[in-house]
Formats: sequence, C-alpha cells, structure tokens
Amino acid sequence: MRVPFRRVNLTNGEHFDLYDTSGPYTDADAALDLRRGLPPRPGVVSDRGTQLQRARAGEVTAEMAFIAAREGLAPELVRAEVAQGRAVIPANHNHPEAEPMIIGKAFAVKVNANIGNSAVSSSIADEVDKMVWATRWGADTIMDLSTGRDIHLTREWILRNSPVPVGTVPIYQALEKVNGDPVALTWECYRDTVIEQCEQGVDYMTVHAGVLLRYVPLTANRVTGIVSRGGSIMAAWCLAHHQESFLYTHFAELCEILQRYDVTFSLGDGLRPGSIADANDAAQFAELRTLGELTKIAKSHGVQVMIEGPGHVPMHKIVENVRLEEELCDEAPFYTLGPLTTDIAPAYDHITSAIGAAMIAQAGTAMLCYVTPKEHLGLPDRKDVKDGVIAYKIAAHAADLAKGHPRAQERDDALSRARFEFRWHDQFALSLDPDTAREFHDETLPAEPAKTAHFCSMCGPKFCSMRITQDIRDAMAEKSKEFAEHGNQVYLPLA
Amino acid sequence: MRVPFRRVNLTNGEHFDLYDTSGPYTDADAALDLRRGLPPRPGVVSDRGTQLQRARAGEVTAEMAFIAAREGLAPELVRAEVAQGRAVIPANHNHPEAEPMIIGKAFAVKVNANIGNSAVSSSIADEVDKMVWATRWGADTIMDLSTGRDIHLTREWILRNSPVPVGTVPIYQALEKVNGDPVALTWECYRDTVIEQCEQGVDYMTVHAGVLLRYVPLTANRVTGIVSRGGSIMAAWCLAHHQESFLYTHFAELCEILQRYDVTFSLGDGLRPGSIADANDAAQFAELRTLGELTKIAKSHGVQVMIEGPGHVPMHKIVENVRLEEELCDEAPFYTLGPLTTDIAPAYDHITSAIGAAMIAQAGTAMLCYVTPKEHLGLPDRKDVKDGVIAYKIAAHAADLAKGHPRAQERDDALSRARFEFRWHDQFALSLDPDTAREFHDETLPAEPAKTAHFCSMCGPKFCSMRITQDIRDAMAEKSKEFAEHGNQVYLPLA
Ligand code: SF4
Ligand code: SF4
Repeated sequence: MRVPFRRVNLTNGEHFDLYDTSGPYTDADAALDLRRGLPPRPGVVSDRGTQLQRARAGEVTAEMAFIAAREGLAPELVRAEVAQGRAVIPANHNHPEAEPMIIGKAFAVKVNANIGNSAVSSSIADEVDKMVWATRWGADTIMDLSTGRDIHLTREWILRNSPVPVGTVPIYQALEKVNGDPVALTWECYRDTVIEQCEQGVDYMTVHAGVLLRYVPLTANRVTGIVSRGGSIMAAWCLAHHQESFLYTHFAELCEILQRYDVTFSLGDGLRPGSIADANDAAQFAELRTLGELTKIAKSHGVQVMIEGPGHVPMHKIVENVRLEEELCDEAPFYTLGPLTTDIAPAYDHITSAIGAAMIAQAGTAMLCYVTPKEHLGLPDRKDVKDGVIAYKIAAHAADLAKGHPRAQERDDALSRARFEFRWHDQFALSLDPDTAREFHDETLPAEPAKTAHFCSMCGPKFCSMRITQDIRDAMAEKSKEFAEHGNQVYLPLA
Repeated sequence: MRVPFRRVNLTNGEHFDLYDTSGPYTDADAALDLRRGLPPRPGVVSDRGTQLQRARAGEVTAEMAFIAAREGLAPELVRAEVAQGRAVIPANHNHPEAEPMIIGKAFAVKVNANIGNSAVSSSIADEVDKMVWATRWGADTIMDLSTGRDIHLTREWILRNSPVPVGTVPIYQALEKVNGDPVALTWECYRDTVIEQCEQGVDYMTVHAGVLLRYVPLTANRVTGIVSRGGSIMAAWCLAHHQESFLYTHFAELCEILQRYDVTFSLGDGLRPGSIADANDAAQFAELRTLGELTKIAKSHGVQVMIEGPGHVPMHKIVENVRLEEELCDEAPFYTLGPLTTDIAPAYDHITSAIGAAMIAQAGTAMLCYVTPKEHLGLPDRKDVKDGVIAYKIAAHAADLAKGHPRAQERDDALSRARFEFRWHDQFALSLDPDTAREFHDETLPAEPAKTAHFCSMCGPKFCSMRITQDIRDAMAEKSKEFAEHGNQVYLPLA
C-alpha cells in the first residue's frame, strides 16, 4: 500500500510529512498525460456493496486501511465511524483514479472546491486546469457544477484526471437536457442523468430531495428567497405541477441506483438561507427535518449519506445548525457552504465565510465547501480558486487544532520553531502557500542572505523581538551558569 | 454639532447612512492641505480633567454627545460606560483634529490599523498616505509604530492630518534615542519621550508595564519566546539591570502625566503568545494579572485604560482570554491583536486572524488591531493596509451582528435586498469595498446593461436561483389571486 504524503525536507536536517491531496501531479517521477487520465488504483472491489455495508459487516476495506494510514488513526476507528454513518468514503467503483479519503467529524476537516463552467464563461481545458490547481492547494474533493456547454465531456475529463473524489448536482445536467425549462423536467430524465453520471464515476451527488411543495410558501417573505440553484429549480417544478417533488417521491429508487455504484448522497439544502436575515428560519429547518427522514431511508438501502448546510448565518446562530443536523440526521457528516457571517463584503466572501466555516467545523462539521472572492459576482477564475482553497484550508486547520486532531498542532509547532530560529526557507516550505510567503519576504529583502537573517523588514534588526529574545535567553543561560558556579542553584525568578 | 456619516444614495430613491471614519478626505467640499493639517474641532475643554473624571462627575461631554449620535445610542449610555471604565474615549486635548469615537463592548466593535516605518523601509509621505488610506477603508484608530528615521516628524504629520485617534508605543522612540540599546534605556529618557508625545497630541499609548522581572523566566521554554517588541525590550532591560521594570516602578508618575492631557493607557501585553503552542500560558496570564493591578492604579488617577490582548490563540482557547481579562481588569475595554488561530499560513494572516478576531469580539473585545498579509514577513504596503482593514471590518461587523448592535443588521438587509432585486450598483455601493466588488463583476460582464441584468456569470441566466425565485413568487401570487377569486382564501401550504 502506497499512501501519499508531501515530504518537506528542512534545513536543519529534519523532515516533515504533510497530508497531500494533489495526486501524482506534484510527483516529479510521474508520467502524466491528461488524454490518458491517471492510472487507476488496483484492487477496487465492486461486488460486495458499499463501504457502509462492508463496514457494518465488520470488514476493514482497502480504502479504510489507506485512509487510516493517511490520517494517522486506527483502521478500526475508520470502520466504526463508517458503519455508524458518522463518516463517509465517497468512492464510486467507476472512479478508480481517486485516492480514498474520508469525511467525518472524527477525522481531519475536509475542504471541497467547486469548479465548472457556466453558460457565460469558461472551457473544458480551463476547468480541468482548475481541478488540478485546486487539489494542488489542498482541495479534498471537487464538485463539477458545470451548467454550460459540454457538461458530459467536461465531467469525463475531470473524472479521468482527478486524484480526489468528484461530486455533482445531476439536476443541472437534467435541466440542460430540457433546454433550461424547470417545468419540463421529469423523473425519467433525471433518473437517466443520474445513471449516466454513476457510470462515469461521480463519487457523490447533491440531491435536493427535501424541497417539498408545502415548504415553498415558507420562503415567500424571505429577503433573498431561494438561493440554491437546485432548490429553486425543484421549487419551480413543484409549484408549476402542483405536485410533490419527484426527487422525494422516487427517493427509494434513487437509493437503489446509488447503492449499485457506492455513490454517496449529499442531501442538498435547497432552502438554505441566502442572507443574514433568512438564517435559521422555518423553511430551512423544515427541510432539514425532511433530510433527516431521507437519511434513514438511504442508510436502510446501504447508501452513504452526508447532509449539506448553509449558507449565510450570523455567528451566534451557527452552533444551532450543527446540533440540529446531528439530532435530526443521525450524526451523518455535515457539509456546509461557509457559512458567510455577514452579507456586506462581496469580493471578500472567502473571508466572511472562512470565519463561519472555522466556527461550524469546530462545532462538528466534517467538510467545508469553499466560497471564493467571486461569490455573488461572477464565475471564479484560477486565482479565485486558489484564494478560496487557501482560506478554507485555514478554516479547516483552525478547527482541527480546536478539536485536538492528533496531528494538527505538529505543523504549527514545526513552522513556529522555524520562524523563531530564522529558518526562513523552512517557514515558507511548511506554510499553506510557500510561493506567496516567499514572494512577500522577497518584496523588501530579496537577497539570499536575508533568508537566514535574524530580522525582517517588519520591525527591522534593532526591533526584532525574536532576535532580542535570543539575547534574553543567552543572558538567562549565562545567569544560570553563574548561579551553578556559585552554589549549584538553578536560575529562579528573581524579583 | 455635525456628525460624520457616509450617505449612500440608492437607485430605488432610498438612501442609507454609514458610520464613517475617513474625516474630510472623502468630503467633496473639503479644502485639504496636508501641510496645514485638518481644521481642529472647536470647543475642546482641557481644564476639567479626563473624559473618565467628567463622566464620573455626571457630565455628558461634547465628545460623548457626538459619539452617541454617531453610534445611534443614548448619550447617557456613553457617559455611564465611560464612568465605569468599561469604555474609553481616546482624545488628547492636543489632538483636536480627530473626530471623537469610543471603544467599549457596548458599542460597535472598532478596528485599529498599524502604520509606521521601520529602519528597513518607507518614508514620511508613505506613512501619511497609509493613514489616509486606512481611514478611507474604515480604520477607527491608527497606531504609528515607526521605528526608523524621523520618528518625531512622521508622527507630527500623521497627527495633524489624522481624523481618527492616534496611538503609539513610546518605548520605540525612547530606544531610538539611546541608539537601539535596550540596556541604555532610563526612566528619565522614557518619561521625556512620553511628555513629548503627549504634547504632540498622541491619544493613547501602549505601555508594557506588566512585564516584570520575575515573569521573564516563565518564557524560557516557549516555542517563540517574547514576540512583543516592547515586551522583549523591557525584558532585556530588566534582566541586564537585574531590576524591576521602570515602567512598573514609576507607574504612578506616568499616570499623572497622562491624566494632564487625557491620554489613554493601552496596557501592553508584552508577554503575549507568538505561536499556538504558547497560548494561554503562565507568562501570559501572570502579566494579565499585573495589568489588572495597574488598571486600578490608573483609574484611581482618573486615567482611561484599555488592555491589550493576544496574539496567537487556537479557537478553543479564545473565550478564556476575554473572561479572564474582564475579571482581572475590571472590564476595561479589551483590545486584541487578532488572534491568529493557526501559525501555518504566513501571507494570509489577515485571514487566520480575522477568524480569531471575529470570535474574540463576539465574546466582548472592544477593539481589534488588524493584522495584514505581510505579518511575519515584512513591512505592510498600501495594498496590505487595505487588505488588513477590510478583513478586520468584516470581523468587527460579524461580531456586531452576533452581539445584536442595533444598527448592524440594517446594512446586511439593505445590501441583500439590493442583491435580490438585481440592483447591482446598490449592492456595490453598500459593500465594504465597492471598487473591488464592481471590478469583479466587470471582469466577466463589463457592459452597463449587465448592472441591471437578472443574473451574473456565476450561474448564468438559466440557473440564476434568484431569478427563478422571482418566477416562483410570481407563480405564488398568481395562485393566491386564483384562490381569492374562488372563495376569498389566502394562499396556504398545499401539500
Ligand atoms: S523583524 Fe519582527 S516580524 Fe520580522 S522576524 Fe523579527 S519579530 Fe518577526
Ligand atoms: S447568477 Fe447566481 S450568483 Fe449571479 S445573481 Fe443569480 S443567483 Fe446570484
């Protein structure tokens, strides 16, 4: 078994291994060809049911063993959490290119990056590039949210080249098939789209099956109505047909399809709040209750489930979302979009939402869907993807620290030791974005000797507190030595 | 009395007034000349003591009335909070150019921006420009942390042109006067520097009087030692002289000086943690206890006091900092640097710390000292100053929402309504950074008609959930009308 890590060789002779999501793309020895796709991992078992079913049967699968080594945790913990439905391993039998990973609150908090074109913007090559770029910076899964041209082909390229699980929202492609008219959608069209995507290898699918006809009027007085694309599409369908959503009425059939491939449900929050004013309202929580019912049905079919969450939520209303989700949905992993903690900063919503994401992950959310600086304003480009991923890696890691994940603080300590010892190259190498850290240092002190200097341009040589601290430690050591010579005492507080 | 607001005229004929920190610089009618300085505000009273003393005597000062109008709160609340020492109004009698503002947990959370040169970088003109720039984006106070050349003159230019209170750390200039050798510092040199700065009009001063000789050894096993510049300088002095800090032994004398000008103490946390590993340790909390003692002494002299806080703190250890500060320091306003919630993201510490800042402000911190992307790497430039201020305005506003500040959510609601109604220009104008929001929208849809279009490039016209919601609302209204015609019923949940 080969488990991926990124090894950082430090200038003091030590090394530090980082969890790595970038697949072979950052491996100097890998022979890559986007047209041929990544090599499949060997030994994928497709005839013994889902990871959930196998975990219940007491089996530690190859994927679970891989994940345990990757996270530095016991294989039995992985199995037990999956068996309980508190964690999911999104791994479609038809996507052997992906490296197994786990989403659950007992594990490191994960980050998803949304990519995909819209009718207004982008191309297949751009989107494959964004996938590689996002995983380079640490995205644990990718969602292909394409709504524009060539949806099937774009997804094919992404799947065959993605080292991480890929999620989709099948209703988008179904809507394209009926020329964008929600009213023309049918169960049959939707079902066929789901099967098409299962066959391709999609690992998890967002299904907005909790948007019931009777919930739609609950959104009538909202400030921002229904802001989930899938939610608004299904609400429009229900209302036009005056019928219950076909996603809800055909849910058991959907379970049977997903079970065959081990595709994980991501039960979508179609009625999530789109503004601070709408947070934690009746519509949102009514839907969450329905998602709880659907969770039980899915699990009874042996299908893995996670639950999507908001959205826009002020800080004091964040924890309630997690508690309620855990209570109603049997502790299925929570997968939230931010939440944004204020509406007033378009162009900075990676920050408004990193605050909410860190807090909701601390409370137990297992995966965070990133938000980029372009949220509400346009389709993210390459720079936005990186900014979004980095902001969310920060939020996820801050939560890992707060939750006491066994490996989290080791990285902070290694970086801080490098900082204190003025090993600038090591400080950069251990950081989330070595390129930018180095570039910022270069701006004022570009010469190589500055990379071992005992100061930087922030405080300058005379005011560098860490340099002064070294002097203080020398002085303390000196005093300690004096004491030892004059009576074998250790250095003690003096005043 | 004229109180500054920024009026946003909306395209629907309404308007929205925003709290404004930019002084006359954004006033089209103002005649500005940096060499002459800003016009002083009339009627500054300098012979009746400090705002604290006057509040205790039951007086609602002109500054308090101004602040009450600015915050939309009762003048008596302002007076009572100042009288209790739960809020401060940093307003040196010799700085009449500043517009009065308040720092206290009953009021909107404030943001400080640090500027100032270092020996390695920058000029006077650059630093005055950064001051104007920082207040343009919402900095409520400025600290001039210059340590390089021309400290006195740089400060003079900043003070005469600053519409917000200015803070300093006098030990920096004192150290320059003794050529950068901490051991050569004396009480007399420090005292004269403080008087010089009081005379110039500095509104609040960071004094690291809590770094006692006996606390220095408590830092010996830290990962990052002493990271406060002032703290490391005083620790070096104490150790070299084997004497208690002159800031501590002469504290009463210092109080007498500050009282004469109504300069506010910002009791510095010289032993704040500089890494996750060092958070909430014995050194940090020992100093905080001493700051509590000094708070009582300062208040007995009628001097206003706030308390500085960390630094680097993981999320689960943040709230303890606020509770302990309130308990030990008699609820004096807390003024924290971040805190950074992880060490692993140099170049993104405005984000690692905006997370901590939002949380610590929600818990009761009154003012947040910004951290820029250059933290740990170099002296911030103009772009970094803006990025830092915006990230901190987000954190402060998120906390105002969570604390239920009466005016906070109005802005979110106004912006979200504009968003939902596709009033793009209004959405930009109500945001923290209209320029960047507009620029991001322009990137994919630059033509003017796109600024009223019912979609953007993120989802495209067919998938715009807010556009679909409008259709849903039309459909619901239609159904409602049908019901009314067939029996005078209102529209009700249907399924
Ligand atoms: S000069 Fe300041 S920011 Fe730079 S290494 Fe020293 S203490 Fe850190
Ligand atoms: S296209 Fe999407 S992001 Fe743009 S306005 Fe519509 S719902 Fe908002």
